[in-house]
Amino acid sequence: MAGRILVVDDVATNRIVMKVKLTAACYTVEQAENGTDALRLARETKPDLILLDLMMPDMSGLEVCRALKAEPETADIPIVLITALCDRAAKMEGLEAGADDFLCKPVEEVTLLARVRSLLRASDSVRELRGRDEGVSAYGFAEAALGFEPKVQPGRVALVAPGPRGAVLWKAAIEERVGGTVQIMPKELALASAAEAEAPDVFVISVDLGQRNEGLRLLSDLRSRPGTRHSASVMILPEGDTERAAIALDLGASDVLHDPFDAQELAIRISAQLGRKRQSDRMRAGVRAGLEAAITDPLTGLYNRRFALHRMEQMLAPPAADLSVMMIDLDFFKNINDTYGHHAGDAVLREVAFRLRGQLKPSDLLARIGGEEFLVVLSGADREAASACAEQLRGCIGAASFDLGDGSFPIRVTASVGLTLPGGLGDGVPVTAEALIRQADRALYGAKAHGRDQVSYTQGAAA
Amino acid sequence: MAGRILVVDDVATNRIVMKVKLTAACYTVEQAENGTDALRLARETKPDLILLDLMMPDMSGLEVCRALKAEPETADIPIVLITALCDRAAKMEGLEAGADDFLCKPVEEVTLLARVRSLLRASDSVRELRGRDEGVSAYGFAEAALGFEPKVQPGRVALVAPGPRGAVLWKAAIEERVGGTVQIMPKELALASAAEAEAPDVFVISVDLGQRNEGLRLLSDLRSRPGTRHSASVMILPEGDTERAAIALDLGASDVLHDPFDAQELAIRISAQLGRKRQSDRMRAGVRAGLEAAITDPLTGLYNRRFALHRMEQMLAPPAADLSVMMIDLDFFKNINDTYGHHAGDAVLREVAFRLRGQLKPSDLLARIGGEEFLVVLSGADREAASACAEQLRGCIGAASFDLGDGSFPIRVTASVGLTLPGGLGDGVPVTAEALIRQADRALYGAKAHGRDQVSYTQGAAA
Repeated sequence: MAGRILVVDDVATNRIVMKVKLTAACYTVEQAENGTDALRLARETKPDLILLDLMMPDMSGLEVCRALKAEPETADIPIVLITALCDRAAKMEGLEAGADDFLCKPVEEVTLLARVRSLLRASDSVRELRGRDEGVSAYGFAEAALGFEPKVQPGRVALVAPGPRGAVLWKAAIEERVGGTVQIMPKELALASAAEAEAPDVFVISVDLGQRNEGLRLLSDLRSRPGTRHSASVMILPEGDTERAAIALDLGASDVLHDPFDAQELAIRISAQLGRKRQSDRMRAGVRAGLEAAITDPLTGLYNRRFALHRMEQMLAPPAADLSVMMIDLDFFKNINDTYGHHAGDAVLREVAFRLRGQLKPSDLLARIGGEEFLVVLSGADREAASACAEQLRGCIGAASFDLGDGSFPIRVTASVGLTLPGGLGDGVPVTAEALIRQADRALYGAKAHGRDQVSYTQGAAA
Repeated sequence: MAGRILVVDDVATNRIVMKVKLTAACYTVEQAENGTDALRLARETKPDLILLDLMMPDMSGLEVCRALKAEPETADIPIVLITALCDRAAKMEGLEAGADDFLCKPVEEVTLLARVRSLLRASDSVRELRGRDEGVSAYGFAEAALGFEPKVQPGRVALVAPGPRGAVLWKAAIEERVGGTVQIMPKELALASAAEAEAPDVFVISVDLGQRNEGLRLLSDLRSRPGTRHSASVMILPEGDTERAAIALDLGASDVLHDPFDAQELAIRISAQLGRKRQSDRMRAGVRAGLEAAITDPLTGLYNRRFALHRMEQMLAPPAADLSVMMIDLDFFKNINDTYGHHAGDAVLREVAFRLRGQLKPSDLLARIGGEEFLVVLSGADREAASACAEQLRGCIGAASFDLGDGSFPIRVTASVGLTLPGGLGDGVPVTAEALIRQADRALYGAKAHGRDQVSYTQGAAA
């Protein structure tokens, strides 16, 4: 299922040579002999990587590349353009068309395989974040929930070169072409930037700094620090140093480039890395938002029922804390919805959530577990403190009217509270989340039966 | 905030030497001069890594290590034991006490820093999966939701050695000590295992296989393949080869060991890696489950309202498909809850979800968006097909009674359906998810008003 590579070349011998190399490295190889077949196969079989010949009779590799990058279904498949003519203009065009790399024939095996590994590793992380489900993406949902738009945030690029002169040349070469800030930093500053709120998005690092291979060590170091582990990196190597280029890719460099390089090429590669970095930043934020959504009541922002039960079970795991459990139910809430509409009802629920939260400590658990039902769990409070807290919570609802802010008359809302005090289940009853809530629920019905707007205690505790 | 290292040593000079080395590498160093202070500081400041001297006057490093690993709050902090006496028994004891590594003085700088990077990288991934929120862990919730228990699954260990003889010796040395299966594989088989359903949990790889450094390349290769990228790996190197040990760690090896090694030590290190691998497998599954929970209605397993709205908006983004939208509401559902109880009502909702799903194509969107309200969205269906589908869905509810399987009399349930046909909003009305649902909702009220158990169309479409 993984490691499927589509080799596109109109010359059969080239395809076979490539297939032998890749098969020996345990990849599965599919072949296409022209652009039309390549497009069809890419759409149908969604390969993990495409090695694409630039010059083909029916349509050029550039056209194929552009077409694939324009379709959402295939846009994420990494593409390496391969050509016999290492023509500068074609190279720039290829990279700007979205190709991930551009290799010249004869393709050197070590370089090719290191590049393949690096691209597969990167696209696999994207896929893992996105979820493998075809069609449906929980990540996509989460991303949307965050309200992400394609923000055009300026990128932060850091240049780490052996001497000031080299870095100044790099900077001059790319500053205008790359948007955002381009900053020259010595190695120490690059490492220190990992601790800052806004670490660079892309590091351009020379493989040798003060010492030989110091750039490689810096790369590993940046990838071990939380602040920079998701930053992209472009490693600059001396001409012909393919061996260390392969090592750099295996160490996690996002891209490699040999000196003397073309300023435009570096700028294009940096921009491509900036784009990818932004995409994966969004995805990670999406995953976090998705997890957040799984535990949150969307109306009030409080925890939801599922999470509250889970949290209570955690609290009851040994060493179990003494828990006080309250069920809080708004009195005659249906009347509010019926009289003023759902909009007003929702506003009341949000305000109730806000008032309750204001009375509680951060460590107290507060959740909305039903339409107008709230759950509060205090850990380690004694009976007096728990009773006082319950009275306070009841009071904070009933004491002041609810002004819905739409010019209508303020509404008075009261709440009934059922409270299970610590030990309130009585001896011998296994203390589970369900049992504590059931007990609080019974007390709540007592409060309702005795006239509402009051706190009732569990039988066990009252005795 | 990251890269805080606690150095524990009773000799001030040792602490200072270590501090100089680590500060030069841009880590923040805290110091403790005895075990008691170390425990206190570890609990209070939660460092990212602890370098712990084995021999101290008040309590031994082993005791400190055991105490920290026994407390949930500090158990995840990586610990490297450091000692002047490289005593075999102490080393085994240290590793079994949960130390992540055991280094002998004088500590070689390259090795130390590579190990620090590797441990920080690993613990940072764990932290990222877990979420940084103190106290509350969405991941933990999701893990609990999956019903995970500490399953004692046998581990799968793969040995990749240069020749059959070496591997056979390794296997004999560790097989009894490590539970699960231990398998000798040539490099090719190791790579091929990445495509299998059950890839090895831990690879033990010799740094040189047929060719020099071939084991390093294999390591990079395994980490670029989805099936093995989360597998752990222990790299075996010749005695004294600290340089390549550092490279192996930077390439992502989970642990390194020098030949000739102690069989017990290898077994302990493999077991530790197995444990960590299982923990992170659980966490990743937890994240997936959490994301799943964010988009799912827990009662029926269908998508929830939030996700359905998001998905509709995706469907409406250019190039927008022609959507047919149905609101399906069960008739007199409240009676079922009132007469037979919530349990029966829930069973009916689950059966309804099952029946609806059975009538729809996988690409059709089906969600439960309210108590007894379901949403169906068809993409690309024409008016005839959409109307026929709506009739079918109505029919599949009303046609057969619901047997709740508890011996009670089967219940008859009917559903009313409101349908917005493609183009049903009329010209000039912006086509949004909200507008389509509102229109279907109006049609649904029409169906209710005209006697229920029927399909009503939108005004626009009927005209």
